[in-house]
Amino acid sequence: MAESKNCDGEESVTLDLLKKKMDDFAKARDWEQYHSPRNLLLALVGEVGELSEIFQWKGEVPKGLPGWKEEERTHVGEELSDVLLYLVRLSDMCGIDLGKAALRKMELNALKYPAPMKNDDHGNQ
Amino acid sequence: MAESKNCDGEESVTLDLLKKKMDDFAKARDWEQYHSPRNLLLALVGEVGELSEIFQWKGEVPKGLPGWKEEERTHVGEELSDVLLYLVRLSDMCGIDLGKAALRKMELNALKYPAPMKNDDHGNQ
Amino acid sequence: MAESKNCDGEESVTLDLLKKKMDDFAKARDWEQYHSPRNLLLALVGEVGELSEIFQWKGEVPKGLPGWKEEERTHVGEELSDVLLYLVRLSDMCGIDLGKAALRKMELNALKYPAPMKNDDHGNQ
Amino acid sequence: MAESKNCDGEESVTLDLLKKKMDDFAKARDWEQYHSPRNLLLALVGEVGELSEIFQWKGEVPKGLPGWKEEERTHVGEELSDVLLYLVRLSDMCGIDLGKAALRKMELNALKYPAPMKNDDHGNQ
Repeated sequence: MAESKNCDGEESVTLDLLKKKMDDFAKARDWEQYHSPRNLLLALVGEVGELSEIFQWKGEVPKGLPGWKEEERTHVGEELSDVLLYLVRLSDMCGIDLGKAALRKMELNALKYPAPMKNDDHGNQ
Repeated sequence: MAESKNCDGEESVTLDLLKKKMDDFAKARDWEQYHSPRNLLLALVGEVGELSEIFQWKGEVPKGLPGWKEEERTHVGEELSDVLLYLVRLSDMCGIDLGKAALRKMELNALKYPAPMKNDDHGNQ
Repeated sequence: MAESKNCDGEESVTLDLLKKKMDDFAKARDWEQYHSPRNLLLALVGEVGELSEIFQWKGEVPKGLPGWKEEERTHVGEELSDVLLYLVRLSDMCGIDLGKAALRKMELNALKYPAPMKNDDHGNQ
Repeated sequence: MAESKNCDGEESVTLDLLKKKMDDFAKARDWEQYHSPRNLLLALVGEVGELSEIFQWKGEVPKGLPGWKEEERTHVGEELSDVLLYLVRLSDMCGIDLGKAALRKMELNALKYPAPMKNDDHGNQ
């Protein structure tokens, strides 16, 4: 099973760890019966809705959420987490390795949107 | 920086790795200017929509997506990844450690929904 | 102002009526300041999330929601309404005539997906 | 069947008209078999995603979409319409009268959020 700490002992959460924890959680509660792909997809949509509700009346929000109360930040963290946890579980129930898929998608994105060369990329010009 | 391999050399994708890669990607393209929290949130909603479109006319879908073509599975993996990547980026732009938040949320969930004790949990009582 | 009854006196709710009512409602509460397009869009996403939550653990649901309790049906009606009301308001704040747009879209759909001719469409065969 | 013109001959689109048109459209294509509540709900989520994609990189957008090109406005109208049409169809397949439900929901909202009295509401003070 994937370690949740890297070789330096620093904690770094892996998608495999979350997958394993979600699976244990569901098994311990006999909830596997409810975790069909479309059930989980609708649950994910529900959590995206709750995340959106936090931001809905705010107008434009700057990076870092300056001026937000600590409890609001905690709430954002919880809703982001709920989306992530259902996403991890949905991927698992679809038989898809989410981490590998994400790395592969980033490679495709890099091909689709090549980065412009920068001056300091190409020495003596 | 978080390693993407654990101590056994086995690849295991961390949320920190994805965060770093998304940040590098945005910087290399000068896209940071577009990555405000609400822009990223709407982009995430867009990707959840694309994920839903794959499942919309299918009726109930069993676990493991039996009978789905390889290209459909790849498509599912790509849309799941798009949701994940925007979620990771949104968390970063909100100043939230998504991995820590997810572990904490699972602890809250465990308190909210305690697992029933099982027979083999309490041997000689 | 659009009548909410047709010429037979039968009540038939028009999109214009809902638009007018939403506008009056916002003005009476001084809420126009919050009704920017993206605020309303995120509010709509929030309501779609609440609608999804009703259906999330149900597995496939037959037409007419057989076996659902009256209070569940009422809840579905309320969430469908919330989505509609924000959609009507969002359209208004975008300066778009939703009714006309919807009729036009149906014409485009009919061109994109032509109906197959039926036997009883073409006389003596 | 609900008229799409009111007694003045002015066109005013009713929810009943859209419901009827969606039903005819589905029947003519033999698509009723696909229109289960959860299929339609996921289709609606897909359209909300497409609507969000139009707004995702724009930052805050003022009312009336000033400066938007005509083709962008048309696109917004089409995506708003797609959301509406699936919402109308979903309501129908749930056996819910969307127009009545929306009027009732507005009454509940008015009770939940009473309008403040205004100076010109109460004469001689």
